[in-house]
Amino acid sequence: MSVNIQITNKPRIVIIGGGFAGIEIAKGFKGEEVQVILVDKNNYHTFQPLLYQVATAALEPDSIAYPLREMFKRQNNFIFRMTEVLKIKPETHLIETSIGEIEYDYLVIAVGSKTNFFGLEDLQRNAVPMKSIPQAMELRNLILENFEKALLTKDLEKRDSLMTFAVVGGGPTGVETAGALGELKMRVLPHDYPELDLNKMQIHIIDMEDRLLNTMSEAGSRSAEKFLKKFDVNSWLKTKVLSYDGEILALSNGKKLRAHTLIWAAGVTGAIIPGFREEVIGPGNRIRVDVYNKVVGYENIFAIGDIACMITEKNPRGHPMLAPVAIQQARCLVKNLKRLLRNKSMQPFAYWDMGVMTTVGRNHAVVDLNFIEFQGIFAWFVWLFVHLMALVGFRNKLVAFINWAWSYFSYDRGLRFIMRPLRNS
Amino acid sequence: MSVNIQITNKPRIVIIGGGFAGIEIAKGFKGEEVQVILVDKNNYHTFQPLLYQVATAALEPDSIAYPLREMFKRQNNFIFRMTEVLKIKPETHLIETSIGEIEYDYLVIAVGSKTNFFGLEDLQRNAVPMKSIPQAMELRNLILENFEKALLTKDLEKRDSLMTFAVVGGGPTGVETAGALGELKMRVLPHDYPELDLNKMQIHIIDMEDRLLNTMSEAGSRSAEKFLKKFDVNSWLKTKVLSYDGEILALSNGKKLRAHTLIWAAGVTGAIIPGFREEVIGPGNRIRVDVYNKVVGYENIFAIGDIACMITEKNPRGHPMLAPVAIQQARCLVKNLKRLLRNKSMQPFAYWDMGVMTTVGRNHAVVDLNFIEFQGIFAWFVWLFVHLMALVGFRNKLVAFINWAWSYFSYDRGLRFIMRPLRNS
Repeated sequence: MSVNIQITNKPRIVIIGGGFAGIEIAKGFKGEEVQVILVDKNNYHTFQPLLYQVATAALEPDSIAYPLREMFKRQNNFIFRMTEVLKIKPETHLIETSIGEIEYDYLVIAVGSKTNFFGLEDLQRNAVPMKSIPQAMELRNLILENFEKALLTKDLEKRDSLMTFAVVGGGPTGVETAGALGELKMRVLPHDYPELDLNKMQIHIIDMEDRLLNTMSEAGSRSAEKFLKKFDVNSWLKTKVLSYDGEILALSNGKKLRAHTLIWAAGVTGAIIPGFREEVIGPGNRIRVDVYNKVVGYENIFAIGDIACMITEKNPRGHPMLAPVAIQQARCLVKNLKRLLRNKSMQPFAYWDMGVMTTVGRNHAVVDLNFIEFQGIFAWFVWLFVHLMALVGFRNKLVAFINWAWSYFSYDRGLRFIMRPLRNS
Repeated sequence: MSVNIQITNKPRIVIIGGGFAGIEIAKGFKGEEVQVILVDKNNYHTFQPLLYQVATAALEPDSIAYPLREMFKRQNNFIFRMTEVLKIKPETHLIETSIGEIEYDYLVIAVGSKTNFFGLEDLQRNAVPMKSIPQAMELRNLILENFEKALLTKDLEKRDSLMTFAVVGGGPTGVETAGALGELKMRVLPHDYPELDLNKMQIHIIDMEDRLLNTMSEAGSRSAEKFLKKFDVNSWLKTKVLSYDGEILALSNGKKLRAHTLIWAAGVTGAIIPGFREEVIGPGNRIRVDVYNKVVGYENIFAIGDIACMITEKNPRGHPMLAPVAIQQARCLVKNLKRLLRNKSMQPFAYWDMGVMTTVGRNHAVVDLNFIEFQGIFAWFVWLFVHLMALVGFRNKLVAFINWAWSYFSYDRGLRFIMRPLRNS
């Protein structure tokens, strides 16, 4: 059964995924003589780089989410359907979704990535990932609930465990989360829980590499490590996680940590949709594409962003899974699809690497641009400005700005709610 | 087993419920030589009068919720425990909670009210109540999901039903909700769903009385009815709901409406905690109290706010269940408890009725003060100002103000997210 969508004689471009890449493609066809169909399992776009701020009570979801229908309400050729894509059927130019089949002339896969537990089943069961807003909200609930529970027990070992947080993964997400937990420890929770000794709150960050932020400059890594140490964050480098039963975390250095909460920020993998030939799946479970982002071996299917693996000399395992790559690939593909529709030849994608930045905590960030590297308070303001500007919509920017300014001047986090969803609904 | 709370030789005042009444009592003892213990099942206070705005995508929960620990972080004698109270044991001066027992010297019951389905089981099963933030969020999800589903069906009867909303209860909550739905119909949803004919969206408000807002002035009722009619809201007065199976709503006038969503705003009842002698339970399932808010027949137990039923000549069924009553009773009880602690006699409660106000929609509210009644745009500004000022905390006020200003000038609602919580967590 096919999904109820008006049939026109215009070429139909179907986009799977409303992340950075997907919305950029859809926007690019505004006013064009095509039918743009975007499908996503959520009716909103998520600004993923700030999920950790939702998890640590610095921002509400509405600051980092934007309704997709709102985004495109002035684009007449745009159609949205909220659904999960189950399978791609390239032979018949169809995608199979939970609400029926949708036909396409051109298919753009922009489904992004999902949490990678590297096959560690006990971690998948017991660790908390942070790839979506509901997950970030759940983590916020868990963090705060732990302290409520710590108050209730006289068992000191249990209390310490409730107040211990292990963050696995020393990339930007892990560092930002550990830093934010450090701020909660130093400045927020002591006021909330005068009955608890917050010095007992332990934060661990664990990474296999020999330094944190190993994709950034060495000066940046050193600066981040120094700053995290100020927050009493323990770094475990060159260390692997072996197992975690929800309480005891076994590390490859023989050490065992007791931690009631383990936040998994150790990596992502392509969120592959079934239906492709096996040889299409490349390193990191990503879809192999050529220099035009065309899926290898298919004519009218493209993949962009995190899910796309474009192997080049400079990127033997594909481009880094970052928002700028997704946005640039989307813009390039818009141009190429337009050329294709006019029977012109496509032009290859070239990534312009502007650099990366990570915040570690109040007044401290690490910025590696391609012409300059710097750390500290100025980097922090640059980080704030760039992220504020990148948020979609004026209302979101303003609300995020107020929450950040509020936290900054009051040394507080205003959003310490434990909001459990309705059961059975 | 008793809850882990430091034992002092100061009198211990235990407050059940962090609503308007509960927080006012706790605040009143700042700096006093007592131990104040507040218990609530949530770690935040809810500003209930604006729940309908959360449900209709005008405000995020963080604008109308305030963390209780934040509220009292500068009050040294304050202790909070997040728990559900299961039973009161007056003989032993204990309350039994889900985390253990808590002893009290004085007990203040401020648990408020809960939704009253008047024994209609199918309504309890199929209607959506709106008494808590999770319920309001769920309603927001349902409203938006209905439109996503309406797009998918070619069955016109089903589509119309998905776009039909019945609000049962013509009091302030019902009127405000119907008005907010009307605004969504007129100004917001047509942009989001150009594929749907929004003229087909039906809103019904149903009440047993012969006018809406029957506790307010007749001029106010007429004005509200007129304004709702502009929004195409159908009023069914002198009408009872007989049954609702989730789709077909049977009314006492013989009419049957097809409505996929029924919002229940028809009434509340006291949220009684077990443990009292039967004769204590008064009309509306509320606790009978004397003029000092002391529970009839008990020495050191008090009840205030919605749960308290103080029968006076002017209020033969107790005071109206309104925030001002709760706050005034709390302030009076603070004074009386302080007098009691100093072996002075208590003074009776007197309600100063300032009047009531209800908003119907953009630029329109109904204000009945005890010296003047007025309706329209000025009333609406008064309503906005009063509610903005009543929100707890500067950050909340500011964020609510921005969201309101945004909606006002853009004719939009920025918060149209369908955010399903994590399953199994």
